[in-house]
Amino acid sequence: MTRRFRATLAWDGSAWFGWQRQVGAPTLQQELERVLALIEKAPVVVEASGRTDAGVHAHAQVISFDLQNRIPVENLHRVLNDLLPEDIRVLSVQVAAPDFHARFHARAKTYEYRIWRGSICPPFQRHYVLHFPWPLLETEMIAAAAVYAGDLNFSAFAASDPKDVHGFSKVRRVHSSLLWREGEQLIYRVRGSGFMKHQVRMMVCMLLEVGKGNLSKEELAARLQPPYAPKACAVPARGLHLLSVEYDD
Amino acid sequence: MTRRFRATLAWDGSAWFGWQRQVGAPTLQQELERVLALIEKAPVVVEASGRTDAGVHAHAQVISFDLQNRIPVENLHRVLNDLLPEDIRVLSVQVAAPDFHARFHARAKTYEYRIWRGSICPPFQRHYVLHFPWPLLETEMIAAAAVYAGDLNFSAFAASDPKDVHGFSKVRRVHSSLLWREGEQLIYRVRGSGFMKHQVRMMVCMLLEVGKGNLSKEELAARLQPPYAPKACAVPARGLHLLSVEYDD
Repeated sequence: MTRRFRATLAWDGSAWFGWQRQVGAPTLQQELERVLALIEKAPVVVEASGRTDAGVHAHAQVISFDLQNRIPVENLHRVLNDLLPEDIRVLSVQVAAPDFHARFHARAKTYEYRIWRGSICPPFQRHYVLHFPWPLLETEMIAAAAVYAGDLNFSAFAASDPKDVHGFSKVRRVHSSLLWREGEQLIYRVRGSGFMKHQVRMMVCMLLEVGKGNLSKEELAARLQPPYAPKACAVPARGLHLLSVEYDD
Repeated sequence: MTRRFRATLAWDGSAWFGWQRQVGAPTLQQELERVLALIEKAPVVVEASGRTDAGVHAHAQVISFDLQNRIPVENLHRVLNDLLPEDIRVLSVQVAAPDFHARFHARAKTYEYRIWRGSICPPFQRHYVLHFPWPLLETEMIAAAAVYAGDLNFSAFAASDPKDVHGFSKVRRVHSSLLWREGEQLIYRVRGSGFMKHQVRMMVCMLLEVGKGNLSKEELAARLQPPYAPKACAVPARGLHLLSVEYDD
């Protein structure tokens, strides 16, 4: 009897070439499929709520997969953490409804981007923040972050996807978009229905342009209107954290 | 004119084979001497307040060194951070008294040891804590930590040093020795006049023995009295953090 599983994972993305399996570079999907295949003694396909780029960290990514193996779920949890490297941890595993799908059923995601403002970036933070010690108009950035909330066309905030030959909609719903100062860090947190490739990193890069005085809040808002141009810049992946994924249940 | 400098450093010890220069393994002293020699265009010797083992982290280690080079101190600070890898940061540099010596003049040091008690160690913590999710008598450990405070003979809590042919005193003054629970962590913090090789890691290992019920507080106290035996065990270096070094000035 096949059981479908749902698991929640945390990982330090520093050493991984992102989620999606690829030839010649270690990826998270491959590593999870490798370990699950050891348990199943047959190939296993793992779906995540979405892909993440190389260097992006996950605090609670959700995945789904099927197993025929009759291993008790608590043992599965333990053996996964025994077999996986320390920079990937399975926080929880449960048996899911047979039609549960980590990607198709995801309703919302929350990402955080961390910018270290102090002149020296502590060595313990170096993989988890963008170090930006130069002057920024932080108050203007905080105000500009609100521009991204709503049902908006993020065409200017998505990496070109060669697979997008059908011209999929670039409209996404952003439930909340907040920037604040916390000690030596600027924290940007965004919750939305879904995000395109590089979208959050491009949104943050444009907030930095506002902070540098290169762009006003109004000019930023105009990038979300036709002609959706020019294309936004993107900040490095290391400061990006997937905090959570929400489902209907 | 030779100037003596005093600098405060933070480092992530994960990738380093400890402080002391050695052949065939990257050490912090070597890396600092390499970078300072690039600036001085001549060999430079760097002294730290004390050696640290491979894997031990520093939040504010103090070093001293001499330069003939007339570089302004602010530029020295910047160029050091430009030349050093991201896992070593110079927090501050200043010109010191000509006789200042990071080791001989150190009056007290504070170390912290972090034990992760949750069943899953977050990937972001993996290099900075000992993961010990098994049962512990934490209240007994908290009480036993006080045993280490005072002027005590730590012979049972020092790695054998082949260089110690003269039988140096193993008496050390511990100003404070505290253990507490903080969220999912047990934190042990000790401030003392100085510590011998492996001393803090051995002190923590014996507190864990109390936590496992293998040793009472009274039996632990007896190890600090003649015959100072048996020798204590030691916990892994990754959970050990040098927090600060104090000087008279």
